[in-house]
Amino acid sequence: MTKKTKRGVAVVGAGMSKFGAFPDKTSRDLFVEAYQEMKSTVDKGLDPSQIEAFYMGNFSADQFEKQAHLAPIIASWVGLAGIPALRLEDACASGSVALRQASLAIASGLYDVVLVGGVEKMTDLPIGEVTDALASAADTQFEIPAGFTFPGFYAAMATAYLDEYDASPQAFAHVSIKNHKNGALNEKAQFNQTIADIMESKKKRAAAKGYPVPTWSNELEFFADPAGNPNIAWPMTLFDCSPVSDGAAAVLLVAEELAYQFTDTPLYIIGSGQASDGALTERDTLSGIPSAAKAARQAYDMAGLTSDDIDLAEVHDCFTIAEIMASEDLGFFPRGEGWKAAMAGMTARDGVHPINTSGGLKAKGHPVGASGIAQVIEVWKQLRGVAGERQIAGNPRIALTHNVGGTGQTCVVHIFERRD
Amino acid sequence: MTKKTKRGVAVVGAGMSKFGAFPDKTSRDLFVEAYQEMKSTVDKGLDPSQIEAFYMGNFSADQFEKQAHLAPIIASWVGLAGIPALRLEDACASGSVALRQASLAIASGLYDVVLVGGVEKMTDLPIGEVTDALASAADTQFEIPAGFTFPGFYAAMATAYLDEYDASPQAFAHVSIKNHKNGALNEKAQFNQTIADIMESKKKRAAAKGYPVPTWSNELEFFADPAGNPNIAWPMTLFDCSPVSDGAAAVLLVAEELAYQFTDTPLYIIGSGQASDGALTERDTLSGIPSAAKAARQAYDMAGLTSDDIDLAEVHDCFTIAEIMASEDLGFFPRGEGWKAAMAGMTARDGVHPINTSGGLKAKGHPVGASGIAQVIEVWKQLRGVAGERQIAGNPRIALTHNVGGTGQTCVVHIFERRD
Repeated sequence: MTKKTKRGVAVVGAGMSKFGAFPDKTSRDLFVEAYQEMKSTVDKGLDPSQIEAFYMGNFSADQFEKQAHLAPIIASWVGLAGIPALRLEDACASGSVALRQASLAIASGLYDVVLVGGVEKMTDLPIGEVTDALASAADTQFEIPAGFTFPGFYAAMATAYLDEYDASPQAFAHVSIKNHKNGALNEKAQFNQTIADIMESKKKRAAAKGYPVPTWSNELEFFADPAGNPNIAWPMTLFDCSPVSDGAAAVLLVAEELAYQFTDTPLYIIGSGQASDGALTERDTLSGIPSAAKAARQAYDMAGLTSDDIDLAEVHDCFTIAEIMASEDLGFFPRGEGWKAAMAGMTARDGVHPINTSGGLKAKGHPVGASGIAQVIEVWKQLRGVAGERQIAGNPRIALTHNVGGTGQTCVVHIFERRD
Repeated sequence: MTKKTKRGVAVVGAGMSKFGAFPDKTSRDLFVEAYQEMKSTVDKGLDPSQIEAFYMGNFSADQFEKQAHLAPIIASWVGLAGIPALRLEDACASGSVALRQASLAIASGLYDVVLVGGVEKMTDLPIGEVTDALASAADTQFEIPAGFTFPGFYAAMATAYLDEYDASPQAFAHVSIKNHKNGALNEKAQFNQTIADIMESKKKRAAAKGYPVPTWSNELEFFADPAGNPNIAWPMTLFDCSPVSDGAAAVLLVAEELAYQFTDTPLYIIGSGQASDGALTERDTLSGIPSAAKAARQAYDMAGLTSDDIDLAEVHDCFTIAEIMASEDLGFFPRGEGWKAAMAGMTARDGVHPINTSGGLKAKGHPVGASGIAQVIEVWKQLRGVAGERQIAGNPRIALTHNVGGTGQTCVVHIFERRD
């Protein structure tokens, strides 16, 4: 049975900070940047006193900044002290969880105008401690003591996938190459370079230092050379992994009947799904993420749509294998066919199912609590036709976001429609 | 303007673990205890497959147990893997924030039956690290480097209060003595002893060891003697402070039209308020908590009630001064009169405004993420007339909970009504 909420909700503003490593900025500073940009995108203007509540996705400022209870601090920092301010956490899906709960709060009738944000400031800690903090998104009682870290989890899923579908590991390289191509066109991305750019600069650096200059003739050759692209946890190499990042993103949600007071081009949230799961060890499959398939089904049902109706998708490519699994969990391609689709360019900007036109987590960066909201920023730009050089053709009208927490203990899917 | 939600919500089950220090139990184990008891309280039975989502209040398992992303783990642990499971965090108000958001989700029409829980497992860390973890509920960029810890914050509020109203510090002792009296009658409380019991056992211990036996002739004398009751941050002594605790609590929420399918004695949530604030340094007053007054006003307005209509209240007595401020912020007594009311016994079980009949955070214990939900457990018992020896007279029908995060950067107030 499909359940509907009692009131629709629209996105009428969207902004984000630059993603990257910013030693001089705290999560507060980054959120101010996102908030200011969001305000500037509200076509008919926003009086901040209209904002009735603040929903914030954040994974673990507790560990990254020794700062819990961050939501009221950030509300105060942007001049909104007084309004209800709360943090929502489901690891790397925290941003989308915040979006979903804020939507439900508006649907309940209690609020009309809500600020939703996501933020994470990860680069202050030494990298070993970052890995430990991220590990707390898995089951630290059973999984972590067995020796897993996140690259290991996704490597296990990748080997299961390769084995089950007799797939080529080159598919992973194709995902990374595509996402870097898109990220190179996104001024907010942490990496504004294509893999070809990176090869070029490595060659130049070698030449300048008098070392032997690598002879890679194309990106796939570079990707397969551990001297350029070291293994992290086979088959996941360095360039299969999303980076450690700082960043923030913010969107403004309003009740549907108020949307046109703010813009003539609102994006309506027409579908929402969320599901949970046990630890990786408790699942029947490692070659897909069951919570993603479940959340997608809920979202499609609520929207009355199928995967064929989606013009573009921002999916959770924390590792390249994750994007391939997502493309199947979301129904874009049949089981076991996602890797072929990636190799055939079907998920490129001009493909049949454009995925991660923003550069994805891989190239845009992955400040974990912000990633779910940053996906909405890309949807906002593409559906409104303001994505610049990376704008997809065909006047896209419907987009999907897919945000995973941990190894899929959480997945949240949203579907957006432009109505103008 | 008072806003109403589009659909009412009722509590139809409520349970909690014993609160205390449990070295052999994790937060999962504690939550299982709370969940099992909650299930046993649903008069007409609960089929767990009816539960559609899990909202969990937790302050910082990240720091206490090195485990973030706890909600799906706990959902899986009680056999509910698959349903949306999320953590809500606003420091010590996390439990009430979860309750509020779960209510809004039901009001939105998306869910009919939701499990709400709160949990914290604090005693595994060395006490210095517990203090550091708790400090992250304040502003760690500005307040903590100035030397504050939480007893210091509330001591600053207490001295401001004493000064502003020329109040007697003995009022604090009266709060503690009362709450220990109530806690002694609560089998789930961490401290089942009155202050008189504690004096007695201290005397016995001294005699057994051949030390001089203290000569305290009454509780106030004990309270004023640093040899029995050392200063922590003057005027807050050891027995003014709530303890470090492990514990969990759970309630079942359902849409109002379904309540009688579960029980003939539902408790309706008729008022809800939440407000935020900046750090302590940013406020106009230290002798009250502005976010509490604001949240209370919202809740009273929504319920169409005043403080006179409240038959009993569970308030956030993390320190004794906090209970006195709460009794004024909630409107039970005029500004500057709360300390006199405490000394006059007006907040005792047979007083005009019974407060913390459970023993409060002081005696019941304060596993921070669970405290807001544990307040609802007491409301459940008192309004249904099953609070045993501590049951208040007069067939109470309306109760209030008041849950503070940090020094009041967050406050959440709820009002419940029994309708049978």
